[in-house]
Amino acid sequence: MTVHKFAIADAVFERSPGQEGEIYTGNLLDQRHGGPVTIGFGRYGPNQVLQETIPVHDTMIVLEGRITVSDAHGSQTAGPGEIIAMQTGDKVTIRSHETGAMTAYVTFPHWQQPEPTSSSST
Amino acid sequence: MTVHKFAIADAVFERSPGQEGEIYTGNLLDQRHGGPVTIGFGRYGPNQVLQETIPVHDTMIVLEGRITVSDAHGSQTAGPGEIIAMQTGDKVTIRSHETGAMTAYVTFPHWQQPEPTSSSST
Repeated sequence: MTVHKFAIADAVFERSPGQEGEIYTGNLLDQRHGGPVTIGFGRYGPNQVLQETIPVHDTMIVLEGRITVSDAHGSQTAGPGEIIAMQTGDKVTIRSHETGAMTAYVTFPHWQQPEPTSSSST
Repeated sequence: MTVHKFAIADAVFERSPGQEGEIYTGNLLDQRHGGPVTIGFGRYGPNQVLQETIPVHDTMIVLEGRITVSDAHGSQTAGPGEIIAMQTGDKVTIRSHETGAMTAYVTFPHWQQPEPTSSSST
């Protein structure tokens, strides 16, 4: 395979599943391309909240704004140039702040493959 | 596992193997922690060059400065907020520019596990 370079302008953003707010994901490299990880950009509007049980190992690098991730152990806030690492099965609440946020993410394995069994009929 | 947050100040930088220039890596989550990926920050001095056959799937997010990666197919330059994705086996030349660079990286599997067989005696 060749070396890929991705900019935010390359991403096609779609509403992230499990919420109807202003949280969007744009995969750039994923299960369609034969590699082991999914790479993309995430875009959060102001003051958005997403509650989720993380289905994969998910690393977020904050590019703009701030993201706060809370779980049973506490709360972590990351700003530009900082990393949040979540593990498969972590039950988290992800929040953006007043300015919204932009992130880059890398998941292993591909986050779009492990479909929640209860959502196939919706 | 809990949610982790990492900042550049958390990293302990060591000279990246295979070169004697000013290229440093600071792993924050790796084979010691039981997860599938290695996460860390990379620091490049000005005008550094690293020639390497990438041993793992390696995603770099440029945080500061610019990084140019060249292979047989061409050359890609990424600046702040942009991503470079390299695949296992890619033969690349990685260059920093006049201002140096800072990156975040995520590798799958752990880049420190596949030891080059010729380096165990050095």
